[in-house]
Amino acid sequence: MRNQPLKEKLFIIIFGADTPAGKAFDVGLFAAILISVGLTMLNSVHSVRDAHGLLVSSLNTVFTVLFTIEYVLRLYCAKNPVKYAHSFFGVVDLLAVLPFYLGLFIDNAEFLDVIKVLRMLRIFRVLKMAQYVGEADLLLNALMASRRKIGIFLVTVLTLVIIVGSLMYAIEGEQHGFNSIPQSVYWAIITVTTVGYGDMAPQTPLGQTLAAFLMIIAYSIIAVPTGIITAEVGLSTAMKRRGKICPSCKRGPHDTDAKYCKFCGAALD
Amino acid sequence: MRNQPLKEKLFIIIFGADTPAGKAFDVGLFAAILISVGLTMLNSVHSVRDAHGLLVSSLNTVFTVLFTIEYVLRLYCAKNPVKYAHSFFGVVDLLAVLPFYLGLFIDNAEFLDVIKVLRMLRIFRVLKMAQYVGEADLLLNALMASRRKIGIFLVTVLTLVIIVGSLMYAIEGEQHGFNSIPQSVYWAIITVTTVGYGDMAPQTPLGQTLAAFLMIIAYSIIAVPTGIITAEVGLSTAMKRRGKICPSCKRGPHDTDAKYCKFCGAALD
Amino acid sequence: MRNQPLKEKLFIIIFGADTPAGKAFDVGLFAAILISVGLTMLNSVHSVRDAHGLLVSSLNTVFTVLFTIEYVLRLYCAKNPVKYAHSFFGVVDLLAVLPFYLGLFIDNAEFLDVIKVLRMLRIFRVLKMAQYVGEADLLLNALMASRRKIGIFLVTVLTLVIIVGSLMYAIEGEQHGFNSIPQSVYWAIITVTTVGYGDMAPQTPLGQTLAAFLMIIAYSIIAVPTGIITAEVGLSTAMKRRGKICPSCKRGPHDTDAKYCKFCGAALD
Amino acid sequence: MRNQPLKEKLFIIIFGADTPAGKAFDVGLFAAILISVGLTMLNSVHSVRDAHGLLVSSLNTVFTVLFTIEYVLRLYCAKNPVKYAHSFFGVVDLLAVLPFYLGLFIDNAEFLDVIKVLRMLRIFRVLKMAQYVGEADLLLNALMASRRKIGIFLVTVLTLVIIVGSLMYAIEGEQHGFNSIPQSVYWAIITVTTVGYGDMAPQTPLGQTLAAFLMIIAYSIIAVPTGIITAEVGLSTAMKRRGKICPSCKRGPHDTDAKYCKFCGAALD
Repeated sequence: MRNQPLKEKLFIIIFGADTPAGKAFDVGLFAAILISVGLTMLNSVHSVRDAHGLLVSSLNTVFTVLFTIEYVLRLYCAKNPVKYAHSFFGVVDLLAVLPFYLGLFIDNAEFLDVIKVLRMLRIFRVLKMAQYVGEADLLLNALMASRRKIGIFLVTVLTLVIIVGSLMYAIEGEQHGFNSIPQSVYWAIITVTTVGYGDMAPQTPLGQTLAAFLMIIAYSIIAVPTGIITAEVGLSTAMKRRGKICPSCKRGPHDTDAKYCKFCGAALD
Repeated sequence: MRNQPLKEKLFIIIFGADTPAGKAFDVGLFAAILISVGLTMLNSVHSVRDAHGLLVSSLNTVFTVLFTIEYVLRLYCAKNPVKYAHSFFGVVDLLAVLPFYLGLFIDNAEFLDVIKVLRMLRIFRVLKMAQYVGEADLLLNALMASRRKIGIFLVTVLTLVIIVGSLMYAIEGEQHGFNSIPQSVYWAIITVTTVGYGDMAPQTPLGQTLAAFLMIIAYSIIAVPTGIITAEVGLSTAMKRRGKICPSCKRGPHDTDAKYCKFCGAALD
Repeated sequence: MRNQPLKEKLFIIIFGADTPAGKAFDVGLFAAILISVGLTMLNSVHSVRDAHGLLVSSLNTVFTVLFTIEYVLRLYCAKNPVKYAHSFFGVVDLLAVLPFYLGLFIDNAEFLDVIKVLRMLRIFRVLKMAQYVGEADLLLNALMASRRKIGIFLVTVLTLVIIVGSLMYAIEGEQHGFNSIPQSVYWAIITVTTVGYGDMAPQTPLGQTLAAFLMIIAYSIIAVPTGIITAEVGLSTAMKRRGKICPSCKRGPHDTDAKYCKFCGAALD
Repeated sequence: MRNQPLKEKLFIIIFGADTPAGKAFDVGLFAAILISVGLTMLNSVHSVRDAHGLLVSSLNTVFTVLFTIEYVLRLYCAKNPVKYAHSFFGVVDLLAVLPFYLGLFIDNAEFLDVIKVLRMLRIFRVLKMAQYVGEADLLLNALMASRRKIGIFLVTVLTLVIIVGSLMYAIEGEQHGFNSIPQSVYWAIITVTTVGYGDMAPQTPLGQTLAAFLMIIAYSIIAVPTGIITAEVGLSTAMKRRGKICPSCKRGPHDTDAKYCKFCGAALD
């Protein structure tokens, strides 16, 4: 086939990051994503829209056309276009351009702007290809390895905020702004995460005492997820640092004080 | 006895989590707890109560009846019903249904709703049976192992907030909202835990300087509980990962993926 | 001398914690400190003072007399009374009773109440004698070992808040509540420690952008003191856990994989 | 040349910290920086400027003249004056005095005061020379070693706040103070960093639910940078502590207090 080489070249440039052209494409994509998201955000500011509305929307059109061409090229040169179109990044790539074309028919610009912002997710596509893969994998693995511990922690926090929120609703009541249990639970979440907007705050001595207990508990248990993640990241990082490789079976890592390969029993040098 | 086998079967389903029926029961219980707590919370929202009051209270009755049947069955099939009834989860199971029946005689619905929310604690009963046991134990052990260190930390924080709160009461006084020492200590707790509602805030330069010092100190000592828990969780996790001992030279620890002793080269079992 | 034995007995009870009498004394002291501090705090609440003023001040007098007797006994039975009187806890013991006697002559009750609260520090005297010594030492050593790293961290944070505070003063100015550089630095401290009262907040787009950067930076660097302390606590805890002791020179700790004593070269069992 | 020795002596005093004179110079510089920055800050307070304006500005002039002399001496005795003048600290040293001389011609005192505050950065010049170098290097290396992980983390947080901010703008809209996407993103940053001013807060149930989710997520991911830094600082600290290698069997690492090799029993040097 005549266009096979072109398809392959395009694949290497668009999906790869190992060639100079592939790297240049990634850098360009990175900039285009940031600028177009920035434009979408600016477009929601009244003063900007009034003063430079035409410029911003023209630029937005340019970027959307570029992203559309990119999407079509990806579909064209992907080894399995259907699989690509259904993959996470395939859907994100489509969502990055679809709102613009829908906007030509629908009038609710703000709703579509929010979807346009989802193209921010495409930035991970660039990171995925670069030298950040190893680091991101390490972090992701640490999070995955501790997902059960974090799950237990979140269930505990959820139980805590539901019970304390309900108590607070009974103590403070509607005259102090705690209008319902869900809203009181919202207050408890604001407090336990130490955000503390102050839009709702207990005013009775009993309520303030309960709030103080909740804060002290939160202060102590905020350490738990940190401890979980730190232990995992620390173990992963430490493991990556060590790393004698067996000269016989090429496997590792081995401890720095290991004499024999733990996989095949051969002597390590 | 004729009903012995049924009793045993029920025990395996209700208290166990190893059979398909036991697992299905746990999943159903999990859903029932979440939905009934959600209903109790929604029931406190005026607009929901006005629009769907009858539906919510009917559903609540259904769930309470289900929980009552479950409680009776647990009492029936437990190996030691008296011990079960006095255990932590036995009391929680009772508290999950009692408010409903009390509510038939008493009129203070909101007070009882708060007790109803305690059934949220039953969610740990499900977690306790599932694969989360090991992880929860690890976290609990880490907390237990560091309970003295955390105790010392909390006493230090308590001393700090009492002294700084008293100073603030002397500095700012009632004209700036610091009406009493307990309330000023409440402010100090809000500040030291970095919640920061802003319902009370120092307004004199001296008070703001003291507050700034308190914040900087808090910023430094928030690291202490984290360090304590992290060290424990890290040690426990690392220890769980390692721990094989060589059957030949009796040395260890070895990595969990080790097949051969790293000291003498003998095969590990 | 006839009263030598009594003096020694008193010393063992009051300063020690190894005998049943010494432990009982500590528990009593612990309770007395907490109750008397609680009374001092309550005494600043208008409604309590109005309703139970006489009761609270009577109880306060009782506790102060008890603490005075204790102070005199400590002076009497201390091996070196002058050294005791000049020690940290000696001064705290005196400050715990002095304000009461000064209050008989002076009228500024609130100022003296704040000093009375310093008796809260005496709680560490009890902790010092109990089984918490080892744990407290571990924490203190970890803090001491990282004091330089924390010092550098605090200087960096100080430089950051001074520069960002000054910039904010120039950007927002007095019309948005940033009345002076010190007050703007106070705002920067509130922000960087994530307390966030909200009594001052930037209102211009430029100011909000700078604030957002400060928060993101704060979010990243809050990890630094945690990392410092955690590393120290972790090392200390890990070291305490290991702990083979050399059978020849009785020293340790040794690594679990050590064959020979690292101090004297003798074989470890 | 006649003045060569003087130049060298000055270099040792001004740039070095190993001689008594060099240390004294550093201590003096440290004090001068802190006092002059404090004066600049105080000078922005109305009441101070009204009461002691002449004193403050006179002292400021004195310090600026001292810093000018210091800058000229540094230029004079530096081994490569051009390289010094273009170095980071060379520029900071110039910025510490320039605003004063510009202020003689320009009238915008506040703008220049902000630049004057940059002399706070000079404090790191003193720290750089002292015993803090090793510790600062350790922290800096830990930060450098984890810069990619922190980069990925910040991109993730940025994506999160942009998407949640946009959603919040669509949900709450201008009637609740969420006037534009950038401002809503500013709110999301305030929330995710747990600062929580409360100047903007969601008021619809849907907005409060989204905010609650954002807080819970923030609570979990605040652990990630901590984990990253902690792992690095921990490894660096642990590595610095260990690191002796046995001269006989060439194995290690050994504890810093080890005298004999734990593997072969040979004496360590």
